[in-house]
Amino acid sequence: MRAGNTSPDPSYYTAMAATFGFRVTATDGAARRGEMTTAHGTVQTPAFMPVGTQGTVKAVLPRDLVDLGTEIILSNTYHLYLRPGDRLVARHGGLHRFIGWERPILTDSGGYQAFSLSARRTIDERGICFRSHLDGSEHLLTPEKATDIQANLGSDIAMALDECLAYPATRDEAAASMERTLRWEKRCREQFARLGDQPGALATAPTISNPGQAQFGIVQGGTHMDIRVASAQATVGLGFEAYAIGGLSVGESPETMYEVVGATAPHLPADRPRYLMGTGTPVDLVESVARGIDLFDCVMPTRNARNGQLFTSEGRLNIKNARHADDPAPPDPRCVCYTCQHFSRAYLRHLFMAGEITAATLNTLHNLNFYLDSMRRIREAIAFGSFDQLRQEYRRIFARRSVDS
Amino acid sequence: MRAGNTSPDPSYYTAMAATFGFRVTATDGAARRGEMTTAHGTVQTPAFMPVGTQGTVKAVLPRDLVDLGTEIILSNTYHLYLRPGDRLVARHGGLHRFIGWERPILTDSGGYQAFSLSARRTIDERGICFRSHLDGSEHLLTPEKATDIQANLGSDIAMALDECLAYPATRDEAAASMERTLRWEKRCREQFARLGDQPGALATAPTISNPGQAQFGIVQGGTHMDIRVASAQATVGLGFEAYAIGGLSVGESPETMYEVVGATAPHLPADRPRYLMGTGTPVDLVESVARGIDLFDCVMPTRNARNGQLFTSEGRLNIKNARHADDPAPPDPRCVCYTCQHFSRAYLRHLFMAGEITAATLNTLHNLNFYLDSMRRIREAIAFGSFDQLRQEYRRIFARRSVDS
Repeated sequence: MRAGNTSPDPSYYTAMAATFGFRVTATDGAARRGEMTTAHGTVQTPAFMPVGTQGTVKAVLPRDLVDLGTEIILSNTYHLYLRPGDRLVARHGGLHRFIGWERPILTDSGGYQAFSLSARRTIDERGICFRSHLDGSEHLLTPEKATDIQANLGSDIAMALDECLAYPATRDEAAASMERTLRWEKRCREQFARLGDQPGALATAPTISNPGQAQFGIVQGGTHMDIRVASAQATVGLGFEAYAIGGLSVGESPETMYEVVGATAPHLPADRPRYLMGTGTPVDLVESVARGIDLFDCVMPTRNARNGQLFTSEGRLNIKNARHADDPAPPDPRCVCYTCQHFSRAYLRHLFMAGEITAATLNTLHNLNFYLDSMRRIREAIAFGSFDQLRQEYRRIFARRSVDS
Repeated sequence: MRAGNTSPDPSYYTAMAATFGFRVTATDGAARRGEMTTAHGTVQTPAFMPVGTQGTVKAVLPRDLVDLGTEIILSNTYHLYLRPGDRLVARHGGLHRFIGWERPILTDSGGYQAFSLSARRTIDERGICFRSHLDGSEHLLTPEKATDIQANLGSDIAMALDECLAYPATRDEAAASMERTLRWEKRCREQFARLGDQPGALATAPTISNPGQAQFGIVQGGTHMDIRVASAQATVGLGFEAYAIGGLSVGESPETMYEVVGATAPHLPADRPRYLMGTGTPVDLVESVARGIDLFDCVMPTRNARNGQLFTSEGRLNIKNARHADDPAPPDPRCVCYTCQHFSRAYLRHLFMAGEITAATLNTLHNLNFYLDSMRRIREAIAFGSFDQLRQEYRRIFARRSVDS
């Protein structure tokens, strides 16, 4: 039995939302199939969360997401805090109601965007001081504030605030940053418990409460395996509902990322979902599932769609490539999505070259279908004990940069 | 009985597509309810055609248009000729198949855009010589070429090439332009007949044929009533399947436009649909229907949607207005469209301010629903003999510039 492969004492979970749960229903090696329950419904895992940064998954509507079988989306706290504001969202009944999405939502902490998008930012023990990328206004994102904002948004899963470590980082930098992240996470957890214990009774935020919300901790430590392990053990000690691996897909090689995931996952509780943040390519998905990851989010399927890059059963395809100009075939002959069932590469290239909004929509529908269908295939393969075959298939398909370059 | 209110001798229609037909099913004053049959199905009239300039109605998908009850769309010959090219479209089975739209399509002649969008253009008896707004390449759009291109596109209804008269125009300018339009229309009709008589057998365009296509003539004459009447009579003499009124909504007042429509429509055959090109506001629709118009197209519902202006049962609404920032009401509380059933003004304003693509989509769905539902109400009111009440309601609602300014 691997170290850390069980939960800490149940007393750690005193603040745990009664509605949150997770159970593993099948395993194949370290890959797990499971079911995560939240206040807004159940999510089959491994699951991919389309990213709805500003309260909408770009270029597609909630009804499209439902049709695609999307069970959970991610939304960005930094963006929604700045515009339209978390208090406005709370006044409108929370994020689900405001954006017309009735299924689960996970919100990040806002830390990564405050670090990467804002005009100027400084980080100290209090938190992240930054200037809005919209109007230059100054804000201080503390662990307590990140927790409050996410309570106002009313997401099903809130993330603790972590410090973003630049890549590459020395061992000392990584260790110091991980320690600060731990201190911030502890404050997040305490604030989370206060909101849960005294709904509506906080002097600092009188109207904030977080019924039904779960909170995930985040493991940091750069690419230093021993720091990752220490971070995992200490974060688990804080007793979150579940745990994420953060600070990857930031410039390191895929192999390094897989190595970090493989070294970290066994130190996270086996009876809790494991979430790899901000990743990744189709190969990243299967390689991470192979190492015990249950949850993913990434802008890749949606952003690449808007840039004309499609994921297909034959590999990546650049729809703007001139060779598609007269091609009557669908993007992916084996795909059953709306786009592939109704439109040719020639038409999609035309829409893209003409700068039409519907190019973004049709490409996004296809790429999201590819990602969500990949997760369905992964779950089925795990249940059938054939996951490794699927993993090898994805490695082979996506070995080439693209099918048309 | 009004002059010209019957069709010319049936022998004029030798080239008429067997599949094209029109019958009036109810009248209320000069307003008519009817049914227009084309090669791709039947259209209830009065009808509004959403504009799909580049082979897509901007920001919405064919399945959305079907859900909205769209029975016919318009597409622009100028744009499709330049990109992706009418021959490419023909190779892909025609426009319907290429763009995934199985219902009727009307194409314009390309003349208006060649005149208004191209970099440099000169007009002489041959046609319109212009430079592409895309790459500066030089093209000559003749009546014959406009007819060939539309045959390649395979639209259900093709439009004859007319000359675009600048507004305002003197009587002499309007008369000369109208005469040239007539000569061009005659050439269009002759080319159309050649394509129909000898499918696939033209030396100049060996692969072009137009089975099932109908061709409409266009009445010109600016705001000079006698020239309009002369144009109508002479155009009808050319024996098109039906007739349009062109050259309006170009700067004249609404009252002047209604006057021209009212003076022209009676000179067009009562047993043929009458199409008012490029118009208009909701009030334009009811005022023109009141004068015997059956078909409309306009970019207003789609373009205004992308600019944040919504048409509602209470009038125009600018969703970007700050007063909507915290408003939980739908854009139109009486509307049953997807947008109004699921989203608040506050959310739609947020999406618009955030520059999200879904703002364009949701606003377009709403505005198209407003226009298409308006046409349904118009048709019902004509059948019930209550059209004038509906007309007055629209005049009252849209008397104000907007509900929120």
